Amino acid sequence: MQRPNYPSGKDLLGADSVSRDDLDDIFARAERLLAEENEEDAPGDQPARLHLIRRRPKVIATLFDQRSTRTRLGFQAAALRLGHQSLDVYDTDRSRMGSATGETLDDHIRTVEAYSDLIVVRSHTESLPYQVGRLSYLPVINAGNGADEHPTQALIDLFAIRNLRGDVKDLSIALSSDTRARFALSFVKMLRLSPPRRFTLCSLPGVPINPPMREAIALLASLGCKVSFVHNVRDTLDHDVLIIQMQDMSRFAHASLGSEAVDKETETEPFTLTAKKILDAKSDTLILNPLPRFSELDVSCDALPNAGYFRQVKLSLPVRMAILERMLLGIPWTG
Amino acid sequence: MQRPNYPSGKDLLGADSVSRDDLDDIFARAERLLAEENEEDAPGDQPARLHLIRRRPKVIATLFDQRSTRTRLGFQAAALRLGHQSLDVYDTDRSRMGSATGETLDDHIRTVEAYSDLIVVRSHTESLPYQVGRLSYLPVINAGNGADEHPTQALIDLFAIRNLRGDVKDLSIALSSDTRARFALSFVKMLRLSPPRRFTLCSLPGVPINPPMREAIALLASLGCKVSFVHNVRDTLDHDVLIIQMQDMSRFAHASLGSEAVDKETETEPFTLTAKKILDAKSDTLILNPLPRFSELDVSCDALPNAGYFRQVKLSLPVRMAILERMLLGIPWTG
Amino acid sequence: MQRPNYPSGKDLLGADSVSRDDLDDIFARAERLLAEENEEDAPGDQPARLHLIRRRPKVIATLFDQRSTRTRLGFQAAALRLGHQSLDVYDTDRSRMGSATGETLDDHIRTVEAYSDLIVVRSHTESLPYQVGRLSYLPVINAGNGADEHPTQALIDLFAIRNLRGDVKDLSIALSSDTRARFALSFVKMLRLSPPRRFTLCSLPGVPINPPMREAIALLASLGCKVSFVHNVRDTLDHDVLIIQMQDMSRFAHASLGSEAVDKETETEPFTLTAKKILDAKSDTLILNPLPRFSELDVSCDALPNAGYFRQVKLSLPVRMAILERMLLGIPWTG
Repeated sequence: MQRPNYPSGKDLLGADSVSRDDLDDIFARAERLLAEENEEDAPGDQPARLHLIRRRPKVIATLFDQRSTRTRLGFQAAALRLGHQSLDVYDTDRSRMGSATGETLDDHIRTVEAYSDLIVVRSHTESLPYQVGRLSYLPVINAGNGADEHPTQALIDLFAIRNLRGDVKDLSIALSSDTRARFALSFVKMLRLSPPRRFTLCSLPGVPINPPMREAIALLASLGCKVSFVHNVRDTLDHDVLIIQMQDMSRFAHASLGSEAVDKETETEPFTLTAKKILDAKSDTLILNPLPRFSELDVSCDALPNAGYFRQVKLSLPVRMAILERMLLGIPWTG
Repeated sequence: MQRPNYPSGKDLLGADSVSRDDLDDIFARAERLLAEENEEDAPGDQPARLHLIRRRPKVIATLFDQRSTRTRLGFQAAALRLGHQSLDVYDTDRSRMGSATGETLDDHIRTVEAYSDLIVVRSHTESLPYQVGRLSYLPVINAGNGADEHPTQALIDLFAIRNLRGDVKDLSIALSSDTRARFALSFVKMLRLSPPRRFTLCSLPGVPINPPMREAIALLASLGCKVSFVHNVRDTLDHDVLIIQMQDMSRFAHASLGSEAVDKETETEPFTLTAKKILDAKSDTLILNPLPRFSELDVSCDALPNAGYFRQVKLSLPVRMAILERMLLGIPWTG
Repeated sequence: MQRPNYPSGKDLLGADSVSRDDLDDIFARAERLLAEENEEDAPGDQPARLHLIRRRPKVIATLFDQRSTRTRLGFQAAALRLGHQSLDVYDTDRSRMGSATGETLDDHIRTVEAYSDLIVVRSHTESLPYQVGRLSYLPVINAGNGADEHPTQALIDLFAIRNLRGDVKDLSIALSSDTRARFALSFVKMLRLSPPRRFTLCSLPGVPINPPMREAIALLASLGCKVSFVHNVRDTLDHDVLIIQMQDMSRFAHASLGSEAVDKETETEPFTLTAKKILDAKSDTLILNPLPRFSELDVSCDALPNAGYFRQVKLSLPVRMAILERMLLGIPWTG
């Protein structure tokens, strides 16, 4: 059917949705929300804050056809902490969508949008968040789509770096990852908004860099960032920050809910980070990881002050709250 | 065991539960709730409304042993928008009910009623909502039971007609449907409270009309409504309103959660509505459909102004809110 | 990794966590919450209470790897009634934990604790709640672990006795149960805080009493409680209270979510309670049962005034609310 043209900027679909102003707005909201959380989390039976002003509770629809722990729970928790609610609108067992009596995506989204205020989509396909964004007048968040993008993870990573190490423009950042990983692509694309002093990609030798990643790195270079390429994680341990993930993510990124035949990737030695390597290098590099981790990040690292990945999970909450708050207020993305 | 006699009118089990006064009350509540929603949905960062007066959040239990998207999400969303909560109390994977270590329905309901304030039942059997209504002192809503009734859908359909076309008593209404469909039976029975000027049933030739439906139509005729019978959807396109669904719903209506072998009904040509038929007839008939649709309603209709079925979904929210609000206040049905 | 030492008393893991003062505090909170519920449940459209002071909604994580109806719904409902929320963080279908791409328990708990305020654990293993309590700085509730303990059920049983029969120290209490049942062990251990006048164990003849149970009963005896052992439920019907459950619970207690091959235990005649036995004995013994019941408790008992087990379910709600309220305020267990 004919669809009206929805206002541009309603959706957060990829790193390109986000402008420098949007990023600053997310940072400011996340910092305020973080401060409020800490204030309330002070122990004891202190006088409760007055929450006199309440809007109607909003309903956040989660439409996930791909396994997720952190992202699903993270958005649900962010909604709850804002006083809103979440509804799981993809339910393989009980929904009719995709079953023999299923309805089309179009009809399903027309129903979901009648009952909710914002849709969070995760999919093993690249197309689903874009389709939902086109079909619905509601704001849509891409929470990871196949091997394409994962912009909310990139916002979390940038906020974690800022919170734990300071302004990214003063820092050297290394990324050790499959160059086809969606979180990695969104992260490097998002770095254009505040290019680091130095950027280093650590990837498998002899494997061509994924073209969109190559393009994103070329853009960083054109903005004055010093770019290097290495093939051993030891060569990243003089950087301020290392974001590390496994080197072959493609099978994982495409796994759908029904498919169980996804193996943990076993990293070969040059791409596995251990406490010994960090200590040998006398490195104070901040280590981030989007989790779940695989063998690329040995548990021996957990006790070192370098380990930032669990604080990163904590910091994901105010970032997801900030994203929801902004979009529920109808503020467009201007990227 | 012996059960006390619960107050009559606590449950909404079928069209007979509802009196003309009850219907007016639901319409008035739904209209107020709709106005409040629209007020709050105005865009921008306007000063929030004060919600100073809050009752204890109520818990709506959903006990569904049959697939559902719209009805389950619809009641959950209605509960959330009222500031209440929902709990899924039928969970094939995790509950003990019906498993080898399961407990009886009686014991299960005694537990559910201890934790909740109202029970919404959907079942592939006719008996379950009546059983739950007898077992529990809580208000019980029948959200569709086998091939019996679906009174909340009928209330939604009547409110959609009123909202989109005006008072039903001034209108001509056509229904193209399996005469055994539960939504259809509840709708025609509910029409007795405000008979339309004219009512037309469009159904398969040579298939006897289901006796309860025949009885409901006879009652309409006895109340002065002009009744006709046709066998081609083209013959309904001079009516003010057409509610259309597939012509063989029985297998669908009886499908339980576990059964996957339910085929989409393929409509034969005389019962399939297309944009071409509407345009050929120069018809301004309002088209409603309880959804999910099957081949009876071609997507070519979606772009026409006649298509009311997606607005119908939107309007289902204030109606379900009105039903919950009324029943949680303990106001009895007087039908 | 190295973990900090978390404050002692943050978790409710077993009967030993609870001191006499803690028990009194739970009773006082539960009684206040019960009074507030009854006040609000008065029928009609009375002026709503003002809930002006609201804290941030808290998130209760439920991590259950074992089937449950009452306990899961009970904690979810308790959270909702307190204005808080629950998140199911063990989801066999959708979570990565335990799947081929799963993460370790340690990593999973680090994520869960970032998104929630309290973790409720039920497991078919004995170890899981203790592990989670050690891994997380959040308060952890053991809601039943294998054949070990079930302390929240014991608090519910004690509150039900108090509410329906008065102070336990003035009463004679009988327990007919498998001596390995976790609820039974927690109950007898908890009795040390307020020993009854008389305690009688009814169990299978020729089956040795489980050592931890033997120890808990010996402690009761050392505190001045008169202890007896019988092998027929008829011999308990002169007591003030009888808590009855099946006599072989071990297979049941160890069943995990995936396992369906758990049979209902069939009680032999001496351990089955019927209305006839109660009436023959002219007994006014209060009958409690943690539910689900099996053949040990015939439905003929339900109509007698002795039947306290459904009121016990109702009373579980203020007790679970009291436990959550106390632990969310950070008040330690001092047992």
